[in-house]
Amino acid sequence: MQEILNNCTRFLTGHPRQRPQEILSEIAANMSEEITADVYGTGDVIRNFEISIADLLGKKAAVFMPSGTMAQQIALRIWAQRKKLNNIAFHPKSHLELHEHKGYEYLHNLHSVYVGEAHRVFAFDDLRTLNVPIAALLIELPQREIGGVLPSWQELQNICSWAKNKNIALHLDGARLWECKPFYEKSYREICSLFDSIYVSFYKGIGGIAGAILAGDSNIIAEAKIWKRRHGGDLVHLYPYILSAEQCFKQRLPKMESYYHKANDIARVLREIPNIKVTPEEPMTNMMHVYLHGDKSTLEERALQLAKQSKIWLFNRLVPTVLPGYHKFELSVGDATLQIDNNEIYDLFTRLTRQI
Amino acid sequence: MQEILNNCTRFLTGHPRQRPQEILSEIAANMSEEITADVYGTGDVIRNFEISIADLLGKKAAVFMPSGTMAQQIALRIWAQRKKLNNIAFHPKSHLELHEHKGYEYLHNLHSVYVGEAHRVFAFDDLRTLNVPIAALLIELPQREIGGVLPSWQELQNICSWAKNKNIALHLDGARLWECKPFYEKSYREICSLFDSIYVSFYKGIGGIAGAILAGDSNIIAEAKIWKRRHGGDLVHLYPYILSAEQCFKQRLPKMESYYHKANDIARVLREIPNIKVTPEEPMTNMMHVYLHGDKSTLEERALQLAKQSKIWLFNRLVPTVLPGYHKFELSVGDATLQIDNNEIYDLFTRLTRQI
Repeated sequence: MQEILNNCTRFLTGHPRQRPQEILSEIAANMSEEITADVYGTGDVIRNFEISIADLLGKKAAVFMPSGTMAQQIALRIWAQRKKLNNIAFHPKSHLELHEHKGYEYLHNLHSVYVGEAHRVFAFDDLRTLNVPIAALLIELPQREIGGVLPSWQELQNICSWAKNKNIALHLDGARLWECKPFYEKSYREICSLFDSIYVSFYKGIGGIAGAILAGDSNIIAEAKIWKRRHGGDLVHLYPYILSAEQCFKQRLPKMESYYHKANDIARVLREIPNIKVTPEEPMTNMMHVYLHGDKSTLEERALQLAKQSKIWLFNRLVPTVLPGYHKFELSVGDATLQIDNNEIYDLFTRLTRQI
Repeated sequence: MQEILNNCTRFLTGHPRQRPQEILSEIAANMSEEITADVYGTGDVIRNFEISIADLLGKKAAVFMPSGTMAQQIALRIWAQRKKLNNIAFHPKSHLELHEHKGYEYLHNLHSVYVGEAHRVFAFDDLRTLNVPIAALLIELPQREIGGVLPSWQELQNICSWAKNKNIALHLDGARLWECKPFYEKSYREICSLFDSIYVSFYKGIGGIAGAILAGDSNIIAEAKIWKRRHGGDLVHLYPYILSAEQCFKQRLPKMESYYHKANDIARVLREIPNIKVTPEEPMTNMMHVYLHGDKSTLEERALQLAKQSKIWLFNRLVPTVLPGYHKFELSVGDATLQIDNNEIYDLFTRLTRQI
């Protein structure tokens, strides 16, 4: 399997695969030799990047952090302290609940309050029926675990107005914020104006090595820097991540529109194939879940054979779904996806799912 | 000041100054292009490095973390849970107390118990008089804030035996562990055999970009990996730090002996100058505190003038001391220090501290 993967030249998901040696060489080749290292959160290289992102999001200040896990726990802890209340609300499929070993609880003594149901984004009506007081509401745009779904702009505004009126802090999990601009047809500033604190990521769609930014008012960010040190995230040097983020950001932010259109092209093509379903049917961002009917190991084996023949890698593995007979994978459109023709995608998936 | 610094070609402290562009280019030039990225703590590049360090320290397992702040809080939290007791003991000038905004308390609800007095390393007698039960004892070897001082090997053994008998976990703050081998004339394994968990660093003496390792028994490290994720330290990719650490480690670990001897040469030379004191009088590692008699701004201005003439940078700034009329700076011997002749150092400091 690893050998077939190594021989592939094209990939359905994400950006072209690069190894660390190539990535680090490119960063070094594309940067000024005048740049000096950041030192414990200070220095032009980190400050300038923070300012540029804060400005793009329409916020007063920003702090670069090693990870979103750190950034979001910190934001929520600050809101909990300000509101003197340890309850924080989010979708049951939030990253905080699924992928962080409940750090928010173990490190910050915060308690989660779920909003809405697991299979859909939450709605204004889900909030109105909340019967627990909450300090902060985290909204993930788009909701990754259910295929990159977004609430309508109107619904989002209703939710945020409700929270504002109740003096509930609004935190945006914007791990994939860059990817939802084409759907909303709003500027990042307009989207972010609904929120008090915002986390954005620089890998995922942007394709940097790692790293995150937390943006908000100046006093929130000043406090977040203290928590960043407490978390062990105030590294002596963060420049490898910052430089990578900066370069990839310039390169890929302008492409978000084309990723979105490609995702919709692919969804249209796949929906025509009898044994395939796509959610959301019309992708709202650059991503979707692709449901394949058939036996898991047969499908995975066929994908390997197709990869061998075509040198196109379709997916790593399939996971079970609630839909009987179907397995799924997550498809995120990036630069690698753009290199594959829609007809070729139709052809590969037709062969993959044909009945024998 | 920045201009004079930029024009300097030699530096009394640390390693030769390199800018990020040069550092990243060197890493890329010295690595195999076959190396693939680590992914959330998995993959050969991280695993092999962890194994090699665990082996060197004589421990079963190890985990690479972004920072020592994270690694140490995690180790102490695990010990506190195992011992069902939230008190942890350390020297009043520990990194945890001075430089981490009390993360151990805010994130882990641990309570500090100071051992000994601020101006000296703690001794066996300080422990015997402790009247509070403790889960873990943190020992920093060498004690950085007081000039890199070490307890004698016999004293260290007594302390550790006492703790072991009382079922107190022993944690080594080995931020500068690499630097204390020449003094003890013991292998890293022998030193580490006294401890249950060990943190080591890859910048400081080693000169890597950043990064730390926590080593210990397999079950401790398995649990630490969960906490690493909770802290937001389980980054999708840590390879820039790992590759840098690995390369610098190979290059500089064999030089620790020469740093130690150079530190002692410099101390000998400086002690001959009337207005200078050095602590410890005979350095135990690669570092010492240099006390200069005279007016702070006069000394700093003179150091700038000397830097202009000689292109040798002596120190960044002086800090007040308890010794009337004296200010001090920390001198850490690294590759840059080795490039400066002892007579030249004598000459520069004689001119710096001469009375007018």
